[in-house]
Amino acid sequence: MEFLSGVLQKETLELSQLREEAMEGQIVKVNGAVHVIRNMGNLAFIVLRKRDGLLQCVYEEGVTDFDLDVLKEAAAVEAEGVLVRSRKAPGGMELRLRTVRILSQPVEPMPIPIAKWKLNTSLETKLNLRPLSLRNIRERAKFKIQEGVVRGFREFLQDQGFTEIHTPKLGSKGAEGGANIFKLEYFHRPAVLAQSPQFYKQMMVGVFDRVFEVGPVFRAEKHNTKRHLNEYTSLDFEMGYIDGFEDVMAMETGVLQRIVKVLEERYAAELSMLQVELPRTDRIPMVRFDEAKRLAGEKYHRPIRNPYDLEPEEEVLISRYFKEEYDADFVFVTHYPSKKRPFYAMDDPENPIFTLSFDCLFRGMEITTGGQRIHDYQMLLQKIGKRGMTTEGMESYLSAFRHGMPPHGGLGIGLERLTMKLLGEDNVRETALYPRDLSRLEP
Amino acid sequence: MEFLSGVLQKETLELSQLREEAMEGQIVKVNGAVHVIRNMGNLAFIVLRKRDGLLQCVYEEGVTDFDLDVLKEAAAVEAEGVLVRSRKAPGGMELRLRTVRILSQPVEPMPIPIAKWKLNTSLETKLNLRPLSLRNIRERAKFKIQEGVVRGFREFLQDQGFTEIHTPKLGSKGAEGGANIFKLEYFHRPAVLAQSPQFYKQMMVGVFDRVFEVGPVFRAEKHNTKRHLNEYTSLDFEMGYIDGFEDVMAMETGVLQRIVKVLEERYAAELSMLQVELPRTDRIPMVRFDEAKRLAGEKYHRPIRNPYDLEPEEEVLISRYFKEEYDADFVFVTHYPSKKRPFYAMDDPENPIFTLSFDCLFRGMEITTGGQRIHDYQMLLQKIGKRGMTTEGMESYLSAFRHGMPPHGGLGIGLERLTMKLLGEDNVRETALYPRDLSRLEP
Repeated sequence: MEFLSGVLQKETLELSQLREEAMEGQIVKVNGAVHVIRNMGNLAFIVLRKRDGLLQCVYEEGVTDFDLDVLKEAAAVEAEGVLVRSRKAPGGMELRLRTVRILSQPVEPMPIPIAKWKLNTSLETKLNLRPLSLRNIRERAKFKIQEGVVRGFREFLQDQGFTEIHTPKLGSKGAEGGANIFKLEYFHRPAVLAQSPQFYKQMMVGVFDRVFEVGPVFRAEKHNTKRHLNEYTSLDFEMGYIDGFEDVMAMETGVLQRIVKVLEERYAAELSMLQVELPRTDRIPMVRFDEAKRLAGEKYHRPIRNPYDLEPEEEVLISRYFKEEYDADFVFVTHYPSKKRPFYAMDDPENPIFTLSFDCLFRGMEITTGGQRIHDYQMLLQKIGKRGMTTEGMESYLSAFRHGMPPHGGLGIGLERLTMKLLGEDNVRETALYPRDLSRLEP
Repeated sequence: MEFLSGVLQKETLELSQLREEAMEGQIVKVNGAVHVIRNMGNLAFIVLRKRDGLLQCVYEEGVTDFDLDVLKEAAAVEAEGVLVRSRKAPGGMELRLRTVRILSQPVEPMPIPIAKWKLNTSLETKLNLRPLSLRNIRERAKFKIQEGVVRGFREFLQDQGFTEIHTPKLGSKGAEGGANIFKLEYFHRPAVLAQSPQFYKQMMVGVFDRVFEVGPVFRAEKHNTKRHLNEYTSLDFEMGYIDGFEDVMAMETGVLQRIVKVLEERYAAELSMLQVELPRTDRIPMVRFDEAKRLAGEKYHRPIRNPYDLEPEEEVLISRYFKEEYDADFVFVTHYPSKKRPFYAMDDPENPIFTLSFDCLFRGMEITTGGQRIHDYQMLLQKIGKRGMTTEGMESYLSAFRHGMPPHGGLGIGLERLTMKLLGEDNVRETALYPRDLSRLEP
């Protein structure tokens, strides 16, 4: 009988091993995709793309035992050669090739020049050719950084006693209500796709006190803008035993600080490749909704048209105001009007026109919506009644409140939007791996 | 202007702080849900449920400044008292109450006795009352362990150079084909819910070499069994530059070893509460599909009815065989017949009736399906053609292969099934937070 007892050790080395373990002059084996070939006659540079970067390999006629003409860009290869440390080589080292073994050949040339530093291709083309355009090292770096954002979020919350949960995306009723719900048939019954894990994460506060989830949410919004997606990854948390909604914002501040730390410590190469300027998170201002509108309106001479909503342009001006006045990249805008918030938002006892809720703006755009929730059963019923809503389909949600729920609050962060603003992109599709919008269901 | 600069410090202490930092006789503040009240006359035990366990509090008439009659089970409270270490108290400490402040009251008594050690309630009732039944500490412990499983999976793969990705759940075509696809309308176009991230993770091998995803998958299967869910959490990975499908199984072995380690080190309380016997992962046998059928059939005198498929009963017998003969909890069954595997499975060059694919059985049940994939474009086209399939809707998937893909393979692990077998449960709904099945779309 044959047994497996762990990861099989390989002869091939990764870049970090070449950098840290291999010795000058050592014969080493590597594998990778042929990123680009620069043929100079009897010498050629073959750059291999590996998961942790690029490696320059040198083909020398008469030395390398291999027919260069056979090799095509985008082939997957295994190569053997002598490791040479050289200041001139990118990354400080190169491989003088002895042999190359082709693992897999492409059948036609790349439709876009992925080896270029900047892919000067339209967003539309990049998205249509997503599996290929992501092979550009700057394109893929965006999603390494996105991975780092998620790691920071998770690691911080786990340290803070949160439990990770996985809630269903198929259900009988949408948490936020409204028209922007995808509907489908579920074994001859009507079903919907989750707009958010709102109801579930609240119910789970009664179980674990503090929970978080990283998962997809679905919004059938007919907006075709640079900031909307119809499916996105939501970073959600919900926490019990809060003293006020400041606790939720303070937790987000901690999350953002950790994200920046994780990126600095573990994603330095990608940050540098994309010239990312990390935001300031040491102190994040909090300003009331009405006050924020007034401050920005006065400073930038923009009359307030709708006192109950923030227009995208106002979000830009408020962010600008706090950047100029307080050198702040993030700002918490608090006390949103009740009529713009879902029924479960806790109204401000001092003035129930407003809620104990907030948005977090980051460099001109809302990336988070959160707040304190109603935890009292009667208060929740009253609010549902006042809005003329039905409790149908909310029986389980309400049962959690009938049987005692602590004061609690939480938030949802749009992962693609946060990444977009972090990287200075101007379209959220740039930071969605395979975006879904009004016209895009493929690839 | 007010600023936030990190998590707000609280006076209330968690159990770990009470255990490790607070001193005997110290007056401390805690919060929690009233799990149960045991009234003995002028003395009462009030057990608080906190996220990391239970805390016994002692109400003494004349000492505790609070009217006990007001307090109800399931209330959320903040309590102040004197910390006393006592061998008799559960967890080795208790709180002699000074005052109790009610944060939130329930409006009616619990319909099930959640404070009992074992909830002697039918599965049906537990699921109908999920937000409440999960407040039982043994019920919730299942999902702490599930969290640990996911942590082990992620941490190991990140250490192995995998990149975490988030792929869309809405698409125009199902990866596995077949009838079990949920369909919906997406802005006047037909769309489907992802049965697996298969196409995406393969395409991403061309980008990051090694990727993983933890996310929901949707199967419109009309099976009403103890092992099927219509939505579940899939732990997926895909890795490039493999020498064979043994690399994939070896990686899974490493994943399982790490999961066991994470559970031992960080989830000991939950393991002990549920009396979990961790499986052996130091060496996992590998056996061919036909050989496994033969071995189990002979030993247990069960004739082989269908040589091309494993029936659930056969999975049980094969697991039993390897437990008895090799003390193995897991077994890799390899070389599944090609006609039972999707088109992208790599056929065995030595006998194309079989594939270089595998299932991992754990204590009698399949928890993983994986294998090597076809990476050659022409071979892929041929297999699609041979099956009479259309390439429509697969243009992007195929483009990745047209432009070079390394030899690769991967797998998907059903999180709920793995948790189920780990905990010795006999129904996968026990280990799905909010299960979705033929009749269940709520809560």
